[in-house]
Formats: sequence, structure tokens, C-alpha cells
Amino acid sequence: MDIAESIREIREIVSQAHAAGKKIGFVPTMGALHDGHFSLIKAAKERCDFIVVSIFVNPTQFGPNEDIDKYPRTFEDDCLGCKALGVDLVFAPSVSQMYPQENITWINVQSLGDSLCGKSRPGHFRGVTTVCAKLFNIVSPDVAFFGQKDAQQALIIKRMVADLNMPLEIIICPIIREPSGLAMSSRNKYLSAEERKQASLIYASLQHAELLIASGLRKSADIKLEMQKMLNIGPEIKIDYISLVDAETLQELETLTGKVLVAIAVKIGTARLIDNVIIDNT
Amino acid sequence: MDIAESIREIREIVSQAHAAGKKIGFVPTMGALHDGHFSLIKAAKERCDFIVVSIFVNPTQFGPNEDIDKYPRTFEDDCLGCKALGVDLVFAPSVSQMYPQENITWINVQSLGDSLCGKSRPGHFRGVTTVCAKLFNIVSPDVAFFGQKDAQQALIIKRMVADLNMPLEIIICPIIREPSGLAMSSRNKYLSAEERKQASLIYASLQHAELLIASGLRKSADIKLEMQKMLNIGPEIKIDYISLVDAETLQELETLTGKVLVAIAVKIGTARLIDNVIIDNT
Repeated sequence: MDIAESIREIREIVSQAHAAGKKIGFVPTMGALHDGHFSLIKAAKERCDFIVVSIFVNPTQFGPNEDIDKYPRTFEDDCLGCKALGVDLVFAPSVSQMYPQENITWINVQSLGDSLCGKSRPGHFRGVTTVCAKLFNIVSPDVAFFGQKDAQQALIIKRMVADLNMPLEIIICPIIREPSGLAMSSRNKYLSAEERKQASLIYASLQHAELLIASGLRKSADIKLEMQKMLNIGPEIKIDYISLVDAETLQELETLTGKVLVAIAVKIGTARLIDNVIIDNT
Repeated sequence: MDIAESIREIREIVSQAHAAGKKIGFVPTMGALHDGHFSLIKAAKERCDFIVVSIFVNPTQFGPNEDIDKYPRTFEDDCLGCKALGVDLVFAPSVSQMYPQENITWINVQSLGDSLCGKSRPGHFRGVTTVCAKLFNIVSPDVAFFGQKDAQQALIIKRMVADLNMPLEIIICPIIREPSGLAMSSRNKYLSAEERKQASLIYASLQHAELLIASGLRKSADIKLEMQKMLNIGPEIKIDYISLVDAETLQELETLTGKVLVAIAVKIGTARLIDNVIIDNT
């Protein structure tokens, strides 16, 4: 497995793989790899011949009061994990490699970025889209893999790729959960044992919503209230949002119809955690 | 020479040229080709092995009260011109081919897009950057060629390519002028004989500025006043802006130092015309 820090090296290695007729699969990450990331790598291995994983904690997607400084960095373990799964190339650039001068070019996916996490984290999604575009242009993959846990990010990236005719396919892979139901996240490392216990209420409340909807409930406000009650069982849980939105447009729904994304963001201690389920009412 | 309307065709033809080891040169245009465009094609022929010209009047870079409906369309002549110059492939997509659904993804190059034409034509540059990104992603050229007449556009495109790590080189070619000094533009077609005469005052006033600066004048306000006087000789000329800005940052200069872009935009009849010179005071 190659590990490269420079854009020039990455381009050389990938273009050789391309020239050899290999299909390039790409998994962009911020490191601190867990089974969620590994599931993306496995999906890439199934569909592609040459797998690139990027490890880059991208400063432009963090807000001024967010956790970039303490974001977990486990580079050596990450590389061991990648190697074990048969990754061909790890791209681990420095910040100055990715941003050699002030970045003044931003990609905005309007409307999809306004709700949910876009509301709580202004500037976050333009940082994500912009760094993904940069990485796509550097790695030139045939397929890139993202996780459904970041449901809004997944929709935004797919729309950016479509609108800008980017020459790659985006595949969204299912959420991977701990046995408690807690969605895998690098930020789970911030949780104490007690907080981790309470964090399982996030998925429990999503499952509760599924049951309520299956039983015929259609009013968002009623379902939210029930979810809120369940989350409030955890004294450390501070709800950022509970949203029931159209799964394609991310517009808030008062009454549920069609494919609905039920999405939660909470803070537990210093960790901001998100999770979601998609429910099809059609 | 191939003429293709679909993205799929373009990708197929270009990828064959790439596979044959050819260097792809790309000249994006809105058609109504003139000697300015032809100079770009000639520059592309000198440096590249396979030349693609796109002809697409891009709706997203026109404002609501601008001239998209009457923008000159001379497709057959354009193709003859391209063929005569040895162009390999003309890409002439329909609007629905380029925008099959509402476009909600926009690329903004901040600060560089705020002054000059960005002020007079809100939304123009995000339309230009976005369609250029789309075309680059469709054509995947090694080099793309733009004209210096659109000085602000040239800087913005170069910065977008750098900031987003787009895998191509941008080459800016000199302004081509009519014998009167008038910069070649598809919009010159809008001019009556009398208006065309007056339009030569644009370049005359730029040359006047060059002389004034060469003679030691350094105050922008003084130089602008002299340029304004000269432009006012043409009764049909309505000045949009006369700007003396830093040639790299496009920030207005009160006192001239370093590389200065002297830029003019005027309306004559229904035509909005721009022109510029760069003067190096270092």
C-alpha cells in the first residue's frame, strides 16, 4: 500500500492505475477510521480494482467554535486498517498541500444545504462540497463512496456531481451501527461510558418514529414530540434538531407523504452526533 | 470534423483521443465566432493535438434584462470556420442537455467577482464559472483557452481552476482588435455604422491612459477623468465603468503601483462592450 502526501504523487500513481485499465474507487475520510468507513472501503473493493482512501481533516468544513483541534487523529491505526482491507493508496495531504493559498472558490448547493445541519453549521456544507470537488479533481476516481449517516451530505454531493457533470459515480452505503444501535462515528470517541449509554437513545427514538409511522401516525409534530420525550430520558442529551423532511428535497413536512427522512442531531457532552432513517410511505 | 450535441458522444470521442495519447485543447465559446475566437483556436492548435470547440449560449450567465434572446447565433458559419482551422470536434449542446434539471449548484470565486462587471452584472460570473466547470468536466481537456478581452473572467477562471485543483491548464490569449482598435466581440454585431465609429473611442481612451501613465500620472481619479472626456466625444457612449485596479486582486487603486488593469465597460446603443489594457508600473 502506498501512502502519499503530495497531489503530484497521487496523480501519477492513479494515472498509472487508470492506464492499466483499472477502475478507481475512492473513499474520502477525515481519518479516525471505524467500521463505518471500513464498510465503504469494502463496498469499493467489491466494485473497483484500485482503492484510494483520503485522510484529511478539512479545516474549511469546521465552524469557528467547532472541534477541529480535538478531532480524533489516529493515522497509524488508520493505515493499518486500510492495509488490512487491501487499500492500494492512502492520500494524506497537509493543510498547506490542499490550501496553498487562501481559498476563495466555493461550491454551494442551494436549498439542499439550508435545512438540518446546514442551519446549525453555517458554512459547513460549502466546505464539504469544495473539499470533495478538490479531492475528486486530484484523485479522479470512477466511483466515490459516502455513508448514509451523513444523509444531507450524501444528497448534496450527489446533486453537486450531477449539476456540475463531474465524471464519477457516487455510491451511498448504509449506516453501520454499534450493537447498542448507536451509529458509528469518529466523534463517538468523545463520549464517556455514561454518555455512550444515553447516546443509544438516538437510534431508539428513530425506531420509535418508524413504529409510530407504521401504526398510521402522519403528523410530524406528533411524531417529533414522541421522539423528543424519548431523547429527554437521557439527561446529557441536548437536542439540536429533530426533523421530518422530504428525503429528496429536504423540505420540512407537516404531514408525512412519500419518502421521508427522519433526522436527528444532538449534543451529548462535547460530541455533536447525527443519525437518520428513511421511511417510505408511498 | 465531428459535431456532437450529447455529453455521452463528447466523452466517448474525447476519451478515444486521450487513449491515443493526444493532448486535448479546448476553446469554450458562445458561438458567433470572430477572429478573437479564431486566435484561441490557433493557439490551441499550436499546443495540442486534438481541438474541441464548444458552442453554447449559456443562459445562466445572462441577467433577466440582458441580451440572451438576441445574442447572435451563426452556427453554420461557426462550424465552417472551425473546420477551416482544423478543429477536431465541435460540442453544441442544447440547453436541456446542459441543464436537464434546475441547476442549484453554483461555483463562486469570491472577491474577484465583486468588482467591475461583477457589480454591473450580478450572477454573471457564477454562471460563467459554473458552466465552465461543467464543460471542463464533460470535455476533460488538458488545456483550455480564454481571451484577455474578458480580463475579469480570465482571472476568475484561473483562480477557480487553482482553488479546486481542476486537472487542466488555462491559457489566456491576447485581445484581437479590428483595424480601428475596437476589440473583437460577438456583440459588435449589434452596432450601427455610426455606433461602430464611436466604439473605437474605447480603445483610444485606453491608449490615452497608457500615455498618461507613461508620462508619470499616478492618480486614478485624474486618469479616469481624462478617459471619461475622451469617451464623452461619442454621444452614443454610456459609460458603465472606468476602473483602474490591481491586475491580480482587482481591487480599486487610488494611486497606481505594480501591475494595473485599466478596464472599461460601456453601452453603445444596445451593445454592452468591454475592453482593457494591463500596464506594468513596477
